[in-house]
Amino acid sequence: MQYLDIVDCNAGDHGKAFATNFNPEINIREVTQKGKYWENGEWKITEPHEIHKPLNYPNIGPKESYLIYHEELESLVKNFPSLKRARFWMTFGQEYLTHLRVIQNIGMAGIKPVMYEGKEIVPIKFLKAVLPDPGELGENYKGETSIGCRIRGLKDGKEQTYYIYNNCSHEVAYKETGAQGVSYTTGVPATVGAMMYLKGEWSGKGVFNVEEFNPDPFLKEVAKQGLPWNELHGVDLEL
Amino acid sequence: MQYLDIVDCNAGDHGKAFATNFNPEINIREVTQKGKYWENGEWKITEPHEIHKPLNYPNIGPKESYLIYHEELESLVKNFPSLKRARFWMTFGQEYLTHLRVIQNIGMAGIKPVMYEGKEIVPIKFLKAVLPDPGELGENYKGETSIGCRIRGLKDGKEQTYYIYNNCSHEVAYKETGAQGVSYTTGVPATVGAMMYLKGEWSGKGVFNVEEFNPDPFLKEVAKQGLPWNELHGVDLEL
Repeated sequence: MQYLDIVDCNAGDHGKAFATNFNPEINIREVTQKGKYWENGEWKITEPHEIHKPLNYPNIGPKESYLIYHEELESLVKNFPSLKRARFWMTFGQEYLTHLRVIQNIGMAGIKPVMYEGKEIVPIKFLKAVLPDPGELGENYKGETSIGCRIRGLKDGKEQTYYIYNNCSHEVAYKETGAQGVSYTTGVPATVGAMMYLKGEWSGKGVFNVEEFNPDPFLKEVAKQGLPWNELHGVDLEL
Repeated sequence: MQYLDIVDCNAGDHGKAFATNFNPEINIREVTQKGKYWENGEWKITEPHEIHKPLNYPNIGPKESYLIYHEELESLVKNFPSLKRARFWMTFGQEYLTHLRVIQNIGMAGIKPVMYEGKEIVPIKFLKAVLPDPGELGENYKGETSIGCRIRGLKDGKEQTYYIYNNCSHEVAYKETGAQGVSYTTGVPATVGAMMYLKGEWSGKGVFNVEEFNPDPFLKEVAKQGLPWNELHGVDLEL
């Protein structure tokens, strides 16, 4: 595995002018920070949203995708030293980015407390109280997510490409669980990870990241639990 | 006086991504409400910012101007029953409007209290605490305001147009008072009104609006106090 691009597309529409799909405090801090990726043995830092391009997602089509920092990159480059490059891409709509920019401009993304009527209030925490509750977005959420890994590397000395991905429908996720697809694709893998531990499929002494364990029983079970995945071999990964 | 358009242009630049020129709570409520104007004996209501067009301002040029509701219209149409139409226009930049739209979308223009950590907090009041203090905008404020009345009516049976306006430089206002032009053009006329009262130029029993008093001593004094005005007769008012 020499080149890894994790691609995280949400092509859904929740019908709200602006809402975050999970904890707004975490979401806004995550996507407004500087970008960071691994290349040729070192971390490269970018301005927020500096690197972006349209990527094609299965069953969805092209969506503008932004290179952001996502923390799993930290352990992946340690556990796969063959990686020459590792990046994380997330899709954002223009309206979402406009809202983020304004939220920063007006000071509501701030993490330093502001004195207000004798009480210290952190702007982004108060914003969280005002924005729609991500848990309530599910009911009218249309469309689907597409999350995958696009990998290029050598197998038996020959260059190969491999793309593994899941598409998850917000509506189907909501019918099953009462939560939208972003919650579903966040929660189900963690649940299956816990199952692996309880069944003894994953074990060891100390602290591990998921990529250090055997993926086969995990992938088998995660497909059963609602996140079936597809593989593409030898396709153009656009990367 | 049959047709009156009050035109309020701020062509200044305070160098901030977003700031209001006076109390943000009042400013945001004022400009996000529905538009309202007087025509043919009745009030017409519009969606917020529904009616807009570029107007030419002296020494400034064309600026997109939005019909908004401004409360002096209420008494003007009572005190000048000859008015067939009375409107108020204010200029806004596209970025200002984008910020306003987002502030509404994310709920921060809300006037209903939100429970936050056991305390009732009104979003727009908290926003005020986070935004730049309008009183601090003056130092780097460039450009000028242009505020006037564009009037069409009959004089001696003949149709006439009349445009009276003041242009006020933010920098000159700041040098004199330490406050920017919007504060200056708000404060100086009120001060001169108080002078009229104290000098006995304006008097009466009860409550009056300024248009019920003799304008001549007021206009003479307001020009001396820093807001000299110009008149244009017979020009195209674009209205």
